[in-house]
Amino acid sequence: MISIDAMGGDHGPTVVVPGVARALKAMPGGEVRFLLHGDPATLGPVLARFPDVAKASEVRPATGVISSEAKPAHAMRRGKGTSMWNAVESVRSGEAAAAVSAGNTGALMAISRLLLRMAGAMDRPALVANWPTMRGVTSVLDVGANVVCDAERLVEFAVMGVAYHRAVHKTDRPSVGLLNVGTETEKGHDDVRGADRLLRESPLDFDYRGFVEGDDIAKGTVDVVITDGFTGNVALKTAEGLARFFSAQLRMTFTGSMQAKLGALIARPALKAMAERLDTGSVNGGPFLGLNGTVVKSHGSADARGFANAIVLAANLARSDIAAEIDRNLQRKPASAPNRESPNRESIEA
Amino acid sequence: MISIDAMGGDHGPTVVVPGVARALKAMPGGEVRFLLHGDPATLGPVLARFPDVAKASEVRPATGVISSEAKPAHAMRRGKGTSMWNAVESVRSGEAAAAVSAGNTGALMAISRLLLRMAGAMDRPALVANWPTMRGVTSVLDVGANVVCDAERLVEFAVMGVAYHRAVHKTDRPSVGLLNVGTETEKGHDDVRGADRLLRESPLDFDYRGFVEGDDIAKGTVDVVITDGFTGNVALKTAEGLARFFSAQLRMTFTGSMQAKLGALIARPALKAMAERLDTGSVNGGPFLGLNGTVVKSHGSADARGFANAIVLAANLARSDIAAEIDRNLQRKPASAPNRESPNRESIEA
Repeated sequence: MISIDAMGGDHGPTVVVPGVARALKAMPGGEVRFLLHGDPATLGPVLARFPDVAKASEVRPATGVISSEAKPAHAMRRGKGTSMWNAVESVRSGEAAAAVSAGNTGALMAISRLLLRMAGAMDRPALVANWPTMRGVTSVLDVGANVVCDAERLVEFAVMGVAYHRAVHKTDRPSVGLLNVGTETEKGHDDVRGADRLLRESPLDFDYRGFVEGDDIAKGTVDVVITDGFTGNVALKTAEGLARFFSAQLRMTFTGSMQAKLGALIARPALKAMAERLDTGSVNGGPFLGLNGTVVKSHGSADARGFANAIVLAANLARSDIAAEIDRNLQRKPASAPNRESPNRESIEA
Repeated sequence: MISIDAMGGDHGPTVVVPGVARALKAMPGGEVRFLLHGDPATLGPVLARFPDVAKASEVRPATGVISSEAKPAHAMRRGKGTSMWNAVESVRSGEAAAAVSAGNTGALMAISRLLLRMAGAMDRPALVANWPTMRGVTSVLDVGANVVCDAERLVEFAVMGVAYHRAVHKTDRPSVGLLNVGTETEKGHDDVRGADRLLRESPLDFDYRGFVEGDDIAKGTVDVVITDGFTGNVALKTAEGLARFFSAQLRMTFTGSMQAKLGALIARPALKAMAERLDTGSVNGGPFLGLNGTVVKSHGSADARGFANAIVLAANLARSDIAAEIDRNLQRKPASAPNRESPNRESIEA
């Protein structure tokens, strides 16, 4: 059973319901069912157009929606009974194996922490970005939740990232790199150098490749890139900005003259194939790792295809033994040295 | 007089000398002269093909070249007499107003710090990237030299970045943003929040716009983006990696079929214009700010056009009153608050 915040995102049910329909097609066998949390009066007419979804789902009336501007603290205090809250609550109660929402990221994280609690010593979940590369998809974490990360935290991200990548991208032994400003061991600050040492020396079970640099992400040098939530968030948004810049440049290029328009018309199948390859919907879905339960954030502006992808991702995660694997691997880690850093390390709810 | 490391970069004099030739054309009037530091036997034949450069230059024999793999510490101990060392030494001695090198970045920074010394309280110079945006060029700093930066340091970057942007990009009153994971004042860690407070409250003379996010860089939301050297370096290299990714995608798209090739052929003038617009040579040249003297790093793989751009940038900086402006503005800054022992990096849930 997968629990869906049917009201979340820029488009609400008009994207969520078609998204569920596509996810159903992508996961044949008929064994996946859905809890749709939302306003029945709004959901009803949309479901009427998607009988497959109606058949595979149960509508759970929810009384409100958390706005995209709501502060996480407000969402925690006043969010009870909203579609987002109830979607996560279904995971907590054990009724659903995973929750998917395209709503407010900070609110979703706050509610997930509150209801599900963190599984280990971490303060808050790590956010994963599925990053399209020359060689496939690289999992980058953390991209926003933990703005300051010491070495121990970065090692935990590595353990979680590897388990995640294997569960979702079906790689036997994912390779891991630590994001830094150079590849030599003396580069960077204390936290990355400390994490590098821990990852090299500890008997954790995975393929650690050392430091990688920013350009290694798009190259696909490793399967999993580890970084603190500040750097990861800036890198991800910088890339999103650049992607929009390039797409504006292309548009300008192919609409600037009659001749360019003609060229674009002739090259249209190839340009369409490129757009398809680069469609970020195919990598939509950012899981929160480290919670007692699976919660996946869909991009607020995702279309039905993107939302479907987030659902499939959530189903893959829910079916995997990611929690057991993370546990197993973290137990190989030697006991932490006493924490010499300030214990007061908080962060954004992105 | 501009001092040139004629042996630096991937191509040495075969790019440097044509680069000087292009710079001469770009700066008409005949008043700019050059010191070319390098091996006369290698430089001679290249100069013979560029009589304008030979006429405007004086060759200063240098006995060695610092390799691209050399460690900064090694370069400092053993670099004396190399073309890079001598290029910087000419600035120290007052003979040249600026130095340009396409050689090893770490070595150039180490030698520049050693010979020129820092102008203020900073440990090491800030590196600036000239970033092409939807609205022109944004100056981003630091992109690599200072991996850990407290609030005071970030404020100094802002002061230097504004002076730099005005000197080089001729903007009257450059706007400044501080890179963060969100735009609300409570986002991020202590260092960015502290810098934000200082920038808002102190009587520094410039147009501070508050926090910006990664995607604001390519948008060109502000003229100057301030960040620590770790985040800035990762953001810059991530963007470089993505640029290569897109260009590989375009190549794949337009060579994948006969029809696509035909389309590209027809759209060729527009595609060429785009390549021209996006040519990173036009923004080549990364100054080191904060030294007692002007040193500009050219990309190691820059072509003659790119190297020429770095020279013009150095000449603009040398002609400007950037040092006086930085001094003047830093004097408006209130005396530093006593330094808290350990910067307690935390943030609040927004």
